[in-house]
Formats: sequence, C-alpha cells, structure tokens
Amino acid sequence: MDTRVRCYDCGATDDLRDRKRCNCGEPHWFDTDTRDFDWPDEGMGIWRYVDVLPVNEPVGLSRVSGNTPLHRNRGLESADGPRIHLKLEGLNPTGSFKDRGSAVGISYAVADGTTWVGTVSHGNMALSVAAHAASVDLECAVLVAEETPRERLELIGQHDPHLFRAIGSYGDLYEETLNLDVDIEFVNSDTPLRVAGQKTVAYEICEAFAPGAPDAIVLPVSSGGNASGIWKALRELETAELLDSSAMPRLYLVQAARCDPIAQSYRAGSAAVTAVDGEETIAVSIANEDPPSGTRALTAVRETGGAVLSIEDDEIRAAMRQLAEEAGLSVEPSSALVLSAIEELTRSDTLGADDDVVGILTGSGYKEQTTVDTAVRDLPIDDLERVLSGLVGGETDP
Amino acid sequence: MDTRVRCYDCGATDDLRDRKRCNCGEPHWFDTDTRDFDWPDEGMGIWRYVDVLPVNEPVGLSRVSGNTPLHRNRGLESADGPRIHLKLEGLNPTGSFKDRGSAVGISYAVADGTTWVGTVSHGNMALSVAAHAASVDLECAVLVAEETPRERLELIGQHDPHLFRAIGSYGDLYEETLNLDVDIEFVNSDTPLRVAGQKTVAYEICEAFAPGAPDAIVLPVSSGGNASGIWKALRELETAELLDSSAMPRLYLVQAARCDPIAQSYRAGSAAVTAVDGEETIAVSIANEDPPSGTRALTAVRETGGAVLSIEDDEIRAAMRQLAEEAGLSVEPSSALVLSAIEELTRSDTLGADDDVVGILTGSGYKEQTTVDTAVRDLPIDDLERVLSGLVGGETDP
Ligand SMILES: [Zn+2]
Ligand SMILES: [Zn+2]
Repeated sequence: MDTRVRCYDCGATDDLRDRKRCNCGEPHWFDTDTRDFDWPDEGMGIWRYVDVLPVNEPVGLSRVSGNTPLHRNRGLESADGPRIHLKLEGLNPTGSFKDRGSAVGISYAVADGTTWVGTVSHGNMALSVAAHAASVDLECAVLVAEETPRERLELIGQHDPHLFRAIGSYGDLYEETLNLDVDIEFVNSDTPLRVAGQKTVAYEICEAFAPGAPDAIVLPVSSGGNASGIWKALRELETAELLDSSAMPRLYLVQAARCDPIAQSYRAGSAAVTAVDGEETIAVSIANEDPPSGTRALTAVRETGGAVLSIEDDEIRAAMRQLAEEAGLSVEPSSALVLSAIEELTRSDTLGADDDVVGILTGSGYKEQTTVDTAVRDLPIDDLERVLSGLVGGETDP
Repeated sequence: MDTRVRCYDCGATDDLRDRKRCNCGEPHWFDTDTRDFDWPDEGMGIWRYVDVLPVNEPVGLSRVSGNTPLHRNRGLESADGPRIHLKLEGLNPTGSFKDRGSAVGISYAVADGTTWVGTVSHGNMALSVAAHAASVDLECAVLVAEETPRERLELIGQHDPHLFRAIGSYGDLYEETLNLDVDIEFVNSDTPLRVAGQKTVAYEICEAFAPGAPDAIVLPVSSGGNASGIWKALRELETAELLDSSAMPRLYLVQAARCDPIAQSYRAGSAAVTAVDGEETIAVSIANEDPPSGTRALTAVRETGGAVLSIEDDEIRAAMRQLAEEAGLSVEPSSALVLSAIEELTRSDTLGADDDVVGILTGSGYKEQTTVDTAVRDLPIDDLERVLSGLVGGETDP
C-alpha cells in the first residue's frame, strides 16, 4: 500500500494518514512513480492498471469497476466537426464514474484494516460508496444534505448504510469530515484515494488510442476531483513515455451556467477558484458552489491548453434529448452537457474535422425519473395490420 | 448475412425471410456451423464472437453490448455451498440482457436494408429496441400492453419510438406481429436474430472458465428465448470442441411461483409447456403465462440435466435485499430470484462446495422506483464528531 502523497502545486510531501491536504491549502494526491509503467497485457477493469494504484488487492464489488465502453458516435457528428467518442461511465456497477474511486477507496480501507468508511454526498458518490462498503461488509456512514429527496434516499438506502441528514451548513461538512478525530475513512470526492481511482478512466481512454492520443477530452466538473485524476493520469503517462508531450489531450471542463465557479474563475483569468452563490440547475450532480479541487482543475485546464465552459439548462435539456433520440443513450443532465460543450467547441472552430474528441458521460439516466411527455397512441388489435401498414407507408395518423 | 434457420426439434430448415417458426410449431434458430470456431484473440463486446453471429457489421449502439462483468461473490457463499459467480447483465447499455439480442437484430436489420423495426414488450426489450433503433436512425414501432405504467412509457419514450398501446388481447400479439404482411422487422424475444444475440452471454461465461466450465448456470426464464440462446451456445461450443460433452453446464431456469408455466410443465413431466393463468408477481419482467419458447427451454433443461424452479414473491424480496446489502448489487426482482434458486439448490444438495455456479442477473434495479423504507437520522453539524464517535464506538443511538 502506498501512503506517500504530494501536493501538485508546491511539491511538498506527506503521509496520507497524517494529512489529505497540503499545508499550502491545496489537495494532495498520491506520489506515483510511472517511469517503468507500460500498457499491461491483462487485468480486470481498473485493476488492469494495478501497477499505478495505491492498493493492489481488489475486494468485493471493487473488482467490477471500469473497462467501460468507448464508443464512436457517427450519428452525433457533423461534416465539419470532430470525431466524437463517448465514454459510457454510466455502465459502471452503480451507474456512475464514482465507482472507480470507490473501488480504490474501499479496497484500500480493507487492506488498511479500517472498519468504517464514510462519505458526504447525496448523489452518485453516496450510492457508490454504500454499495461498495456493503459488498465487503464494512460499516458505512453517509451524510446527506437536509433537502435530499426521498427517492434518492431509498436508492442509497438499499445498501443499508448509516444514513444521516446533516442539519446546518452542508457546505463546510466536506472539509470537516476529513479532519475529524473519528475512526472513519471518508472517501470524499477529491481525496487522494478517490483521485487515484478516477484517473483510471484516462488510462483507459489513452490506451484505446495508443500509440496516438485523442486531441481533447471533455468532461463535467463539480468538485474537481475527477478532472484532477484525469490530469494526473496524463502526467503519469507522459512520464511513462506513453503520451507524447507535444500531443497531450487538452482538457475541457463543463459546468452548468447556473452554478459555475470554475468557469467564472477561468474567464476572469484568476489563479484560484472563488466560491459562488449558484442557482438551482437540472444538473444537480455537479452543482458545487465551492469546489474543493477547483483550483487544481483550473490548473489542469491551463496546463493542457483547454478551457472551462458554461452551459445553460435549456441547452442541457436539448443535449439529453439528442443523446437519447440520436445515440440511444440515456444519461443524467450532468453528463449531457458534455455534448453541448462539444458542439460549442465545434462552432468556435476549437474542434474540427481532423480532431478526435472524447466526451465522458459520467452517469446513467436510469436513476432519476424521466419526464419526456411521451406520446402514446391506442391501437385496437383487430386493426393491427392496417395501422402498421399505414405507419410504414407514411400516413401521419394511420 | 446468414438466412438459413433450422428447427431445434425436428431439424427442418427454412429461410429466415420466409418463416421464423417451423411447420411443426416450434421456433427456428440460425443454423450455425461452429466446427472451426476457436476462442478469439480480440473483439468488442458481443462482436468478439462475430464468427458465429448471423451478421458481421455492428452499427450504432449495437457495438457496445456484452462483455459484462462475471464476478465471484464470496459474501453470498456458504461453507457447504457452491462458488457463486454473478454475471452482471444490467451493465449492458440499456440496463438489461436484452441489448445482446437487440444488437444483433438491429445490425441485421440495417445490413438487410430494413427501414422499420418493431417489438412487442412493455419492459426491458422495448427500451432496448427503441434505444438501438434510435442510434442508427431506424424507425421503430413499440407495442405495449394497455395497462403499462406511465413511468415505463416515459423511459421508453426518451428514444422517441412510435409507441402504441394495444387495445384487446395482448397475449396473441406476440405471434401475430411475426406473421404480419407489413414491412417491419419484429425482433421479439425468441426470434432467431434475438436468440443469436442472447447466446453470446454463454460464450462469455464459458470463455471465462475455459478450458474448464461452470457446473451450472442459473437464470430467470420468461419467453424462453434467452434460455434457448444459452442452450444453443453450449451445443455450438460442444461442436467446436471447446466444451467437453461430459462437462456441460446444467441449466437451471427460474420463474416466479405466481406465474410459472415452464416450472409446472417440468414438474408434471410434460413434453411441452402449457399456458397458465398466472397471478400478479413483483417479478413483472418474467410474468409470461404462455411462453413462445417454453417447450424449447424445457428441452434445454432436460438435455443438460438441470431443472426449473419456482420462487415465492417473499423470497424474491429477501433475495433483492440480500444482493443489495451483502453484494452491493441493485437488481430487478426478476433477476434477484436467481439467488433464491441457488440457495434452494444448495439446500437440496444439488449444488455443493465443489461446484461453480453462474447466476445471470439479467437486469438493473435502477429503472424502477425502489421502496426499502430507508431509515435516516438527523445529525446537527455542530455535533458531528460526537455523534460519529458514538456510532463507531457502538452506541446504538449516538
Ligand atoms: Zn502545497
Ligand atoms: Zn420443427
């Protein structure tokens, strides 16, 4: 098990057990040596990359995460636009990208002799941590916000964690749980263990393109933990000489316009991300007003020559419809805006017909009630052949 | 493209375009020559087995199906019971095993120049066919039963098919749509194209165990189409000399006790399956009173030395809870009963500690509203450390 963590920013090192954030205020990540890493011959899911993970013994549901399909979607492409490859992270075991980080976090906790794990989340991460903990009989504390809807609680509750509704300022809870004097390993969204797991998605993407690389990777950003993991992977693959420094994929991060602190700081040219007062958005999974790894994500964007985009809710709705009706993909709003961003980057000629872009669709659309106002017609069975013939023949109301 | 189909029972052959069922009344399947087949070196999802599929050019979402995790679950095993490996079919793109058959059906339809596809279903198959058709811009007609709930329609409606509510006897519709004089390719649940796709799950299972084989495969049965596909795969692998005749996995099929025509016919020792008047069950996806491939499924059970089991709704609920709380898996009731069946086979000493059993969990639990009556406690944030310390320390109500 690795325990040495390093600050991406000032380079200071620490032991994971002592601190998860650097003295300078920025988050740590594992100090991984990839000089000898090469693409592996085999391995199951994320454990294909076990040589660069901080724990090497997957347990329970952890064995199942990763190896999600990367799928070119010609139906979504335009003549002057990029080749669009979509990474279907909703096909992880609990339906979201969070399973990669949970897999590493829970396996590490078991190897470390931990009895209790925890998380602060009311969405994908809570479900993922609860399911992974259940699969290895770890006790699990899930802290949700006061206003979390009942359906969401039932989804998480299936896996029988200790569920707490936090009464008070939910905003500070994230940091507080990382510094508690309590024997619970909190695998929150930008902790070193989670970032180590999340980076595997970029390993999978880059291996699929090897020896080349995609020109751009587009993904939603919330806490910045996932973006940090992907940036870490690109740096590690560069060190391993499996990615050429001159051909590093650019990272484009996407937020809902109604809650976009990282995008605002990007546009302002700020060095660090400042918290905002966001508005309600349909992209609930990424509505993070004060992202703990926001500055690290912003640095990733600048270092790779990418950008941060803001998408309006109406465009997000349109992208969801387009993905469902033209690609057969049901995703949550917080994933759909990746398509809107790719379209915006195409309109601005940032991406063109020579480019390969990978869009990461972080979560399945099946965990929320859909409302598309579906039209259904009655068809008397005695009339089957006549009605269907008319339909095929082009009658509008056979 | 293959077009030659053969009756599993009397051996008569036909062209797929002429007929999908044999003159003798039994369903046809593709006449596939596997004498030269060997485990492939590469290939994406189900297309790894393209040499034994009736179409070789995957299109759209069809490229993504298959290659689902097969995952040993020690947490569900008992000291005197079998090793339990679960095949997570809910991780197919639309959340169920149906995607394998849709992938082959839709790719075949495109290769064949078809403009319209259709299906008779109000569940997983409707969603799967609608999504696959949308991804390649095929027109799609979905015929659902009159009483299909609104949430279900919205789920299917996302992919914008032509949705029809069949008014009249839904029971006959399945057969009728296969014989209509209308230019719509119906990929219903036991048609040769669908069975060809469904068989790939057994190819994946057997390849994972090669050169050995699991002792038993346990799966839910509804129309009998999936069981037929699995049986076809076992026969094909035996022909290819990749499965030893003396070590063929036994097929155990599982039904809800409240609607179990195949199990009743099995227990009665009948040669053919007779329709029943079933009762309502929580296992809605497999409540099929008159399974079109019932007799073929029953034959598969007898030829492989397996059995057909009936599970009560209460046991199904208990199995769902057990899967969620002990394995971290959320599945639909129609999948959970596989675990009940494995436990019953263990109690009766049909499966023991020397056996490897594969349970096929056919569908995700995320597409239906869960109601587990989850307990949530309020936690004042100022009290965080005290409450969590108490929890870890074993206080029942910290
Ligand atoms: Zn620092
Ligand atoms: Zn026949």
